[in-house]
Parts: sequence; structure tokens; C-alpha cells
Amino acid sequence: MVSLAVAPPLADELAVIQVFSATEADSIVAHPVPVLELDFGGVIGDRHHGISRPADSRQTRFYPRGTLIRNRRQLSLVSTEELAEVARRLDVPEVRAEWLGANLLVEGMPALSTLPPGARLLFSGGVGLVCEGVNQPCRLPAQVLQAQFPGSSAQAQFVRAAFGRRGVVATVERPGLIRPHDRATIVPPELHTAFS
Amino acid sequence: MVSLAVAPPLADELAVIQVFSATEADSIVAHPVPVLELDFGGVIGDRHHGISRPADSRQTRFYPRGTLIRNRRQLSLVSTEELAEVARRLDVPEVRAEWLGANLLVEGMPALSTLPPGARLLFSGGVGLVCEGVNQPCRLPAQVLQAQFPGSSAQAQFVRAAFGRRGVVATVERPGLIRPHDRATIVPPELHTAFS
Repeated sequence: MVSLAVAPPLADELAVIQVFSATEADSIVAHPVPVLELDFGGVIGDRHHGISRPADSRQTRFYPRGTLIRNRRQLSLVSTEELAEVARRLDVPEVRAEWLGANLLVEGMPALSTLPPGARLLFSGGVGLVCEGVNQPCRLPAQVLQAQFPGSSAQAQFVRAAFGRRGVVATVERPGLIRPHDRATIVPPELHTAFS
Repeated sequence: MVSLAVAPPLADELAVIQVFSATEADSIVAHPVPVLELDFGGVIGDRHHGISRPADSRQTRFYPRGTLIRNRRQLSLVSTEELAEVARRLDVPEVRAEWLGANLLVEGMPALSTLPPGARLLFSGGVGLVCEGVNQPCRLPAQVLQAQFPGSSAQAQFVRAAFGRRGVVATVERPGLIRPHDRATIVPPELHTAFS
């Protein structure tokens, strides 16, 4: 193997602020846990855990609803910076990661949602995640937010306010444990350019 | 779920010319088969089949060699257009897909190797693949080529000639069968742009 990749240098770092698991099958809301234990299906015990899952409304352009597809939505990540901006736009005191069903709240990459598919996150504890793409804002967190702030217009405004700021979903490349205060290196996808 | 994705339209199409399986553990060379049978581990019977695999020399920047990681190299795809260009640059009559251990020879997307990670290939038979990135040229096909064309300088020149033209690797999103003459729609990754 000869490495001639146009390899971007190991880039930014981010910090894990808090980790969460969503264990109730009928609720999006997650709860803080001391550690995430990951295997090739994602977060063990989380409602999104699995190698495969049925296609949902996000994939109707590609697969009939209910078709068994690879689970590319094992974990979801949000950033303190983007959640603060969503809260500001909604004019509410805070938007907590657990209300959105996130597994990881991170800090240090303000535009987390721009992370491209194929980017790696290499955690200090040894875990490797691969970004599978943006997390599409849906109405479920909007309802949770509205219940938290009954006088707000969060329910009506959430999808628009969170669009492009909702974080990303990821899969496990290398299993292990993720804890608060872990750090992660961000590695952009490798791209090749043909020599002329 | 509200779909506000900045969704690129369903884009180009490509044609499956031939399909291959590499069944010998100690050889990169594949052989033509009438059909590829895919599950969530890739091509059943192929040497690259599996949900996980040991990290190799391509991942030494990220993981210790031998670490069990998710198998993102389930299938490899090459295009007739890029192989013709590699042959032209090597001044050899042809470069066959099976010599490179490819599983799919496709036609209709000349710059197949520019397909970004996260792009979907939706096949007419129902299979869905996800591009995991470029295939890094290594020295093994160079040796196969040199054996085919002893008078050439293929061994010395292959990596440079094939760089950026070596096709892509992919994983199975929706299992099923792929046959020659199937067609596939190319769907770019979804990207979101925050509203201002």
C-alpha cells in the first residue's frame, strides 16, 4: 500500500461535555449517563441501537417505509454552540441536548452540522465514529420544547430555527467507551485528485 | 418529520456492466459471477464480506493495525471509463476490473472516483449501496498487471496512473441482488444549509 492520499491534516478537536442514552421506545427524550458503551450497533441499550433498522419517513424517496436498511443513525451528536443559537432564535432560556434525544453533547466545533459524511471522530478513549450526515429536524423535539416553555412559540418555530443546526448522526467504526471530558480529533474524509 | 433538506435532485444513472466476486483469501483477483447476493456484510462469499474486519495499513493513522473496525470496504466499484484511461496511461491494451479485485464494473459516470462519501447508489433490482470513499491504489493490482503485460512498466507506474481513477468502496444499505444490466441512480449526500 502506497499512501498518496491528498490527506487533510488531522484537524480540529472537540470536547465531550455530556453523554446520554434514550432508553424509552416511545419517547425521543434521552437521559444523562456516566458512560456510553458502544458496539458495532451503536449505544448499547439505546433505542437507536442496531446493525439494521426499518426505513422511516426520512428515506421514503429511496426505500419503501419499513424496509430493513443498515442503521446509519446509531448515534446523534449536538454542539453547545448550535444549541445556544437555536435557543436564541426561539427566544427560550435553553435547549438541552437530552430534549432532542442526543447521545453526545460536544463543544469546540461550532458548526458541527457542517461535518461531512465520511468524516471521522477519533475519541481519546479509543472510540472511532464516522459521520453519516446531518440530522434532519423533526417535530418531536418541538413538542418537548413547547412542553418545557408553554408560553413560547417553540413548537411552531423549532424546525426552521434548528435547520442546519441540529447536529449530525454517526455510526461506530471502532467500539469502546465514551465519557464526559473525553476529547475527539476530527478527521475530514479522504479525497483523491487524479494527477494530471 | 418535515423535509426541508436542501436535497439535490435524483441525479445521474449508471449501468452495471459486469459483477465479480473475489473468493480466494490470498489473491486480490476476482472472477465474474452471474449475480451478487448482498447482505449487511457485503457480497456473500467474497473475501471482503463482513460487518467488521481488522484495520489494515490504510488506517494506521487512525487505529492500530489489526484493531477490529467496522467494514467500510465491503464492495469495490470501478468504471469502464476510468479503467480505459488507466490503460491508456500505462500503454497497455486493457485493465480488467477483475484484476483489481472489483465487485462491480459500471459505466455512465466517467469520474466515478469523485463520488463523495455518503452518496447512495440505488439499483434497479432494489439494492442500495452507500459510498464510503475512494479506493486507495495499492501495489497488488500492479503486480497482477505486470504479470499480464510482462513487457510493460505497469508495476512501476500503476499507483500513479490509477490515483484518483481507482473507483470507490461502498457498503450495503439495503440488501438484495445485483446483476449485469441492472441500472443504478446516483443520489448525492444530503447537505443542509442553515437559514440565515
